[in-house]
Amino acid sequence: MVEIRKPIKVNEAISRVFEFSIAGEVEHVPIEQSYGRFLGEDLIADHPVPPFDRSPYDGFAVRSVDTVGGSRTNPIYLQVVGEIGAGSVFSNTVQENEAVRIMTGAQIPEGCDAVVMLEVVKEVWMDNKPHIELKREVRENDNISFAGEDTKKGAILTKKGTYINPGVAAVLATFGYKQVPVSRKPKVGIIATGSELLELDEALQPGKIRNSNAYMIYSQVMRAGGEPIYYGQFSDDLDTCFQQVQEAFRKVDILITTGGVSVGDYDFLPAIYERLSANVLFNKIAMRPGSVTTVAEKNGKLLFGLSGNPSACYVGFELFTRPIIRTYLHAFHPFLKKEKAILGSDFKKANPFDRFVRGHLSFQEGKLVATPVGLDKSNVVSSLAEANILILLPGGTRGYEQGMEVAVILLEDQEGTTLDNFVQTEINSRRSQRHG
Amino acid sequence: MVEIRKPIKVNEAISRVFEFSIAGEVEHVPIEQSYGRFLGEDLIADHPVPPFDRSPYDGFAVRSVDTVGGSRTNPIYLQVVGEIGAGSVFSNTVQENEAVRIMTGAQIPEGCDAVVMLEVVKEVWMDNKPHIELKREVRENDNISFAGEDTKKGAILTKKGTYINPGVAAVLATFGYKQVPVSRKPKVGIIATGSELLELDEALQPGKIRNSNAYMIYSQVMRAGGEPIYYGQFSDDLDTCFQQVQEAFRKVDILITTGGVSVGDYDFLPAIYERLSANVLFNKIAMRPGSVTTVAEKNGKLLFGLSGNPSACYVGFELFTRPIIRTYLHAFHPFLKKEKAILGSDFKKANPFDRFVRGHLSFQEGKLVATPVGLDKSNVVSSLAEANILILLPGGTRGYEQGMEVAVILLEDQEGTTLDNFVQTEINSRRSQRHG
Repeated sequence: MVEIRKPIKVNEAISRVFEFSIAGEVEHVPIEQSYGRFLGEDLIADHPVPPFDRSPYDGFAVRSVDTVGGSRTNPIYLQVVGEIGAGSVFSNTVQENEAVRIMTGAQIPEGCDAVVMLEVVKEVWMDNKPHIELKREVRENDNISFAGEDTKKGAILTKKGTYINPGVAAVLATFGYKQVPVSRKPKVGIIATGSELLELDEALQPGKIRNSNAYMIYSQVMRAGGEPIYYGQFSDDLDTCFQQVQEAFRKVDILITTGGVSVGDYDFLPAIYERLSANVLFNKIAMRPGSVTTVAEKNGKLLFGLSGNPSACYVGFELFTRPIIRTYLHAFHPFLKKEKAILGSDFKKANPFDRFVRGHLSFQEGKLVATPVGLDKSNVVSSLAEANILILLPGGTRGYEQGMEVAVILLEDQEGTTLDNFVQTEINSRRSQRHG
Repeated sequence: MVEIRKPIKVNEAISRVFEFSIAGEVEHVPIEQSYGRFLGEDLIADHPVPPFDRSPYDGFAVRSVDTVGGSRTNPIYLQVVGEIGAGSVFSNTVQENEAVRIMTGAQIPEGCDAVVMLEVVKEVWMDNKPHIELKREVRENDNISFAGEDTKKGAILTKKGTYINPGVAAVLATFGYKQVPVSRKPKVGIIATGSELLELDEALQPGKIRNSNAYMIYSQVMRAGGEPIYYGQFSDDLDTCFQQVQEAFRKVDILITTGGVSVGDYDFLPAIYERLSANVLFNKIAMRPGSVTTVAEKNGKLLFGLSGNPSACYVGFELFTRPIIRTYLHAFHPFLKKEKAILGSDFKKANPFDRFVRGHLSFQEGKLVATPVGLDKSNVVSSLAEANILILLPGGTRGYEQGMEVAVILLEDQEGTTLDNFVQTEINSRRSQRHG
């Protein structure tokens, strides 16, 4: 007898899983290895920026009081008593009618309160000593970058959970983080099921196909920021399978299986959840593809039973597993960003369920355009490689036409969004109208 | 005497550098390590997809001829003579009035030419044998996925130079690429100059700042797909510097220096280019920031003399160095994608030169909106971490207002564009009009 499962709504499923999200530990890595990781602590300024009053230009540091009355007809002459390269300091105090040559970034010398740019003075010799000729008045504080004007000491520069891009790396370096606190990557175990699956180096056999889901998920885990661990393929024997799952589950932070969650005779996962005494959060979702996606938890640790169908597997990971990985990494925006776009081509399939279609996002005249990929069957395999979005097509329609507004989920974006925003955007898309 | 340099246009500079772009070698890595790399060869289908005629559904494989005349009032009965799980094959030929239970993905048995879905039949027992009752006619080829209908054997699935995302990984696995041909990462040497620079673990000293450019560039090289090698900071001594540069230059595919390219007394790079007998392509560009960016080549190998100013250094890398790295990786779109966006806030600075402003791209109601970051000086350091675009503001204006159309360069995008497209979009942005 075939078991009857009651489907739940996608957003309800997402919320149920997300209740079990937890943040992981923090470790330290050298700054050179920090690119692409997530900050494990708030990044604090250990000094003001600039750290001292400095010159933003090449020029001369002067005392503004000495320039009073300077004009085209009444040039002022100041004796140049020294030179400050970037990184060096002027050891004396500058006296009346003196100036000091100063390089960009160098510290303003004692006694001076302004900088004049190189271009506005003339260097001259008087009494066998170098002088500058200045034909204008200079005001106090002219051309000075003041200590702390960019950043105060103690300020939070970048928040915990931020993706470390080159700009963040620069900030880390500026504040002396030779070792960077980063979120530890969750260990994400992957087990493939399906007796039709061949490993990659096996020759094709009648009725069998190569296991592509495991390696796809492996890359998706890396993109999400986790550490994938592939435990290979399931045995055909339920007892052995159970041992495999139990052992892997103990070693990882998150376990993913692909396939075996349907109600067919070879679908072992439901039995395994039962033996594990895992709490099945749901085993049917009102969505396509991926309706059989099952998520279970035991002692707060999650088991993702993704579909064996490649598209369903891909979508299930991004909707359900990715936010859990990103939360583990302390990201405050663990969900993929959802935006509005114009549909770039017709999608005529009648659609009783919410559908997530892999698509390609392009920009046309400053607007987002979403085009489904993989619909042309003659090219289905390679076009999936072009997918950088999921197009969300809410159910209950006879199909969608080019030019209509749809919600899209950005797969390559690092910024992300919150659960609330993620769920909200879907509601908006249901109210979408044609813009054709 | 200060040397007078003649500035060239940005696009002219980009084109001059790009003439020296070369593609690198190919190496093989295990598929698990291929995520984020670039394909070193075209990816070819070694078998058709599907590899055999198969069932897209759970159901029964039948001979359509046996169903002729079937209807609600005239049910057809077929004896179920076997069962095919995914991955197994049916060894006999199906005979008249026989059917075989078949799972999703399993191979169509000999003799059958159609599949009926599980839901449309009733399983019954007749003469102590399992049968199905079918109340409709089935046509030849109904519910069969034919061998090769997705992909023909020998087809190019993904082109050389493609960024390996999870979809590409799935394709690689499907076609048995346990070892993946990827483009070798170019070794990109980094040397920081500036006697004001402290290493990250040094305590702050009067007049000195920590070296942030080297670590920023280190991350930018990684984002571009290169292998960064940090050679530390320049000595203050020209002879030692020359040795450092010469030695590093020999070991790498591309060499980057930061700082030391101005016309100041401590700017050693011009002298070093001369001693190296390197051909300086340009040493002044009509752009802000980064006007002193200098690029030289020797025997076709490039030396990038980026500015010591962090913003200028960042911009110089993305405009000039990144396309060279991506071409080395065989990417057919080595330039960052340039798109149109609406300016999200005023940028009032008068602007005689083309300006590249770090900004943040967001999407509002399906449109691209570009907002400059780091203008608010009180937050300049941390806001640079938010930059995911460069906003291109062509020179010759009195400033830009919120709502105007601008060109933006997408820093986190993996798709990229060609030199022609990159240059073209700039021209369009000069014709931009207000959309306020």
